[in-house]
Amino acid sequence: MTFDMRQRVLFRHCDPAGIVFYPRYFEMINDGLEAFFEEALDAPWDILHKAAAVPTAEIKARFATPSRQGDLLILRVSITRVGRSSMGYEMTARCGTVLRFEASGTLVFVDEAGKATAWPADLRTKLEEHKENAP
Amino acid sequence: MTFDMRQRVLFRHCDPAGIVFYPRYFEMINDGLEAFFEEALDAPWDILHKAAAVPTAEIKARFATPSRQGDLLILRVSITRVGRSSMGYEMTARCGTVLRFEASGTLVFVDEAGKATAWPADLRTKLEEHKENAP
Amino acid sequence: MTFDMRQRVLFRHCDPAGIVFYPRYFEMINDGLEAFFEEALDAPWDILHKAAAVPTAEIKARFATPSRQGDLLILRVSITRVGRSSMGYEMTARCGTVLRFEASGTLVFVDEAGKATAWPADLRTKLEEHKENAP
Amino acid sequence: MTFDMRQRVLFRHCDPAGIVFYPRYFEMINDGLEAFFEEALDAPWDILHKAAAVPTAEIKARFATPSRQGDLLILRVSITRVGRSSMGYEMTARCGTVLRFEASGTLVFVDEAGKATAWPADLRTKLEEHKENAP
Repeated sequence: MTFDMRQRVLFRHCDPAGIVFYPRYFEMINDGLEAFFEEALDAPWDILHKAAAVPTAEIKARFATPSRQGDLLILRVSITRVGRSSMGYEMTARCGTVLRFEASGTLVFVDEAGKATAWPADLRTKLEEHKENAP
Repeated sequence: MTFDMRQRVLFRHCDPAGIVFYPRYFEMINDGLEAFFEEALDAPWDILHKAAAVPTAEIKARFATPSRQGDLLILRVSITRVGRSSMGYEMTARCGTVLRFEASGTLVFVDEAGKATAWPADLRTKLEEHKENAP
Repeated sequence: MTFDMRQRVLFRHCDPAGIVFYPRYFEMINDGLEAFFEEALDAPWDILHKAAAVPTAEIKARFATPSRQGDLLILRVSITRVGRSSMGYEMTARCGTVLRFEASGTLVFVDEAGKATAWPADLRTKLEEHKENAP
Repeated sequence: MTFDMRQRVLFRHCDPAGIVFYPRYFEMINDGLEAFFEEALDAPWDILHKAAAVPTAEIKARFATPSRQGDLLILRVSITRVGRSSMGYEMTARCGTVLRFEASGTLVFVDEAGKATAWPADLRTKLEEHKENAP
């Protein structure tokens, strides 16, 4: 069970070398998780954020080959770990069969005061379902 | 031997939770390396980029505590590894004595075609000097 | 004859007040023009940019009502003027029937040296067709 | 009476044509106003934003000549109008004596609900002082 998001490489993503400026990849990664929460978990961030948040605690990425304006990337999200108040994920971006980057990170569920808090039961169930069925 | 850059947290860095949106931290990291190359290595990117580039091959970061608008961060760069055509670095950001993030990454020296290429001798000498004298 | 682009308001667009940070609107405007050139004019920027560019010479915008995370905006582009080497456009963004912003600007067609240059004949024909049929 | 801010053109500001991507200029404009409020008006946004905000109602800009990585810009702010709950400003950016852009805009002082509200008396006094003494 994975979640895919299409992401066209646009002019605004690219740097003077004509390739994606890597902080823009982290914006894409964030957009990918935002879409995953809304479409796969039915927990859109604009609702979730009224009383909680899911900040990133850590992240790493390897940029395998550069991406250029016009490329169509498929970002694929899978859940690798579900903790009491955190989750681990992996994300890849491919253009056709070519890997552009692979990333992994940890999100933490926090309350309005920024304190780590147990996932709501229904959200946790959905996260575990995704993890069980990850490839 | 380390290199420090001051970075005020500005309105544009912050997200709806009032804290730095983490892709903006990667922009700060990039700015820190750009200043390091110019001021510590005397190799400003606008000159260097006429015939080469130093793309990021991999990077990881741990976000220890959130930063808010108005915070003054000190980003500290140190060199951890100098290869034939790559270098490893560590960067920390502190507000006073409090760690906000720690990151490490690898830059690769590439020619105009994007191919990894040996560091120019003088640049390599300066990189090694920084590494030798790292804390 | 107008061109519409859907744009969801995402987390990364929003500021500490929870509304779109206006420089992000200008990124959306740029994305809207990029899509218009590709889909309506059959002149994708990644091709066009191999030998030319279409920088913005001037732009103005009025932000009528704030947009929030989760809003679905429709950006509508229409051509208002076609010059020898420039074009004027108007763009509106609405959420449902509510105007969020209206903007207008001028793009200039320039060669690799950055010098204003006459539109290629086929591109000019398409621009004029869009202008004639603008509402 | 004007307020100047230095802004180096960095790698992250530049697009595949090697010049500043204009939405980045609007980030610079926002940074310039943020510095003006803190340094010239003694009203730092991180304090002001606890109970109010100063969103941009409208803005226009003319991009006179392109800026490139490494350029040092001086952004100059002057106040052109002080209303009950709004202010008009002009901003120019020059590299040496060469104009890069000129912009003008309107900020509105709003309360937490986003409603236009009269400027606090002391802030209004300072704004008027800046306007009186504008060149």
